[in-house]
Amino acid sequence: MAKSVCIVSGGMDSATAMAARIGAGKEIIGVHFDYNQRTMIKERKSFNALMDFYKIDRRFTIDLSFFGTIGASALTDRSIAVPHEFSGGVPITYVPFRNGIFLSIAAAIAEKEGADEIVIGAVEEDSSGYPDCREDFLRSIEGAIALGTRDETNIALKAPLVHLSKMQIVSEAVKLKVPLNLTWSCYENDDLACGICESCQLRLKGFALAGVADPIDYVDK
Amino acid sequence: MAKSVCIVSGGMDSATAMAARIGAGKEIIGVHFDYNQRTMIKERKSFNALMDFYKIDRRFTIDLSFFGTIGASALTDRSIAVPHEFSGGVPITYVPFRNGIFLSIAAAIAEKEGADEIVIGAVEEDSSGYPDCREDFLRSIEGAIALGTRDETNIALKAPLVHLSKMQIVSEAVKLKVPLNLTWSCYENDDLACGICESCQLRLKGFALAGVADPIDYVDK
Repeated sequence: MAKSVCIVSGGMDSATAMAARIGAGKEIIGVHFDYNQRTMIKERKSFNALMDFYKIDRRFTIDLSFFGTIGASALTDRSIAVPHEFSGGVPITYVPFRNGIFLSIAAAIAEKEGADEIVIGAVEEDSSGYPDCREDFLRSIEGAIALGTRDETNIALKAPLVHLSKMQIVSEAVKLKVPLNLTWSCYENDDLACGICESCQLRLKGFALAGVADPIDYVDK
Repeated sequence: MAKSVCIVSGGMDSATAMAARIGAGKEIIGVHFDYNQRTMIKERKSFNALMDFYKIDRRFTIDLSFFGTIGASALTDRSIAVPHEFSGGVPITYVPFRNGIFLSIAAAIAEKEGADEIVIGAVEEDSSGYPDCREDFLRSIEGAIALGTRDETNIALKAPLVHLSKMQIVSEAVKLKVPLNLTWSCYENDDLACGICESCQLRLKGFALAGVADPIDYVDK
């Protein structure tokens, strides 16, 4: 059975991307990153709950706490507030080249494990506008991974959600029976989702447009 | 003064690459990686000694001890012996996509710090044959970094040694007055260099062909 290295944050998007690859018959290797983000403990719990739900034993939790030293983002620097409205440009929640780092580490794991694909839940449109979620970037780093690994290593980079809207992702998740109650998207809180950070807003918009109730609890619900 | 993020392992190559950028008038930000490699403590000492020598205050030591979990290389897995002869193909000391991970993290630091270049001491010919030291790979990941960072971020990737022989690197180091006594190349030992691992052999060949005495101590010297 061909192996798939899935980057799983604990959020709705990566859980849905992984579910699609399970549906395609892949053997999943789950990779999660602790990068000193505000909701690190909650996200790690969501990752493990998803892995348990899908009975996936092969899982890596990678400690990247050095992100706290680099800073420059509201997610990893506690002195920068999480914004409650969209800024227009690249928001302050952007973590410099985060997906580049995640994908490089996933490539190392994929090469070691003999996997033939890496899966990321990146979304280009209808998202926060992070440069490292653009399909052009993903295709480019896929090429770099091919050149920077052994000649006999062949790893495809799959981003099945990259051109979906949040509404389409919710619909896809429902169709695939993703346990959305186990997922976490809030940037700010780790008990009740705040409902007002950009990530909560995008999630709630997706559920509303899809006509589906979000099963997680929010502060203002 | 334009900033340069230099990846500095503590070895001869990266020290020489950095010295060349100091010579070009750059303000250096030194980045070193602890990746659970056998000679981690010695290499970190060499890095700090080089930073002290060049009076560079801005330095990052990044903990990537998760490499021990990925394994698959004689450098990070203590159960795999360091070979004493060249295998022909990609050697067992190859750490999967290591330079991809290093360069991605360097890119994050460069974007945060407003640096306009990343410098790596990778050598393509006359080297161990690692796929992530090839110029094709370096040019490809440079493109990925451009696409995966903010549009206003412009980071060049410089690999000034990529087409030099080890003899040429020693000559260049001598010309630039690099403190070669502070550098460390051995894969196996952290007290006296073994002189027989592939990295020691390449280093010693370079010194011999350049007609220069290697100032560090070897087991058999």
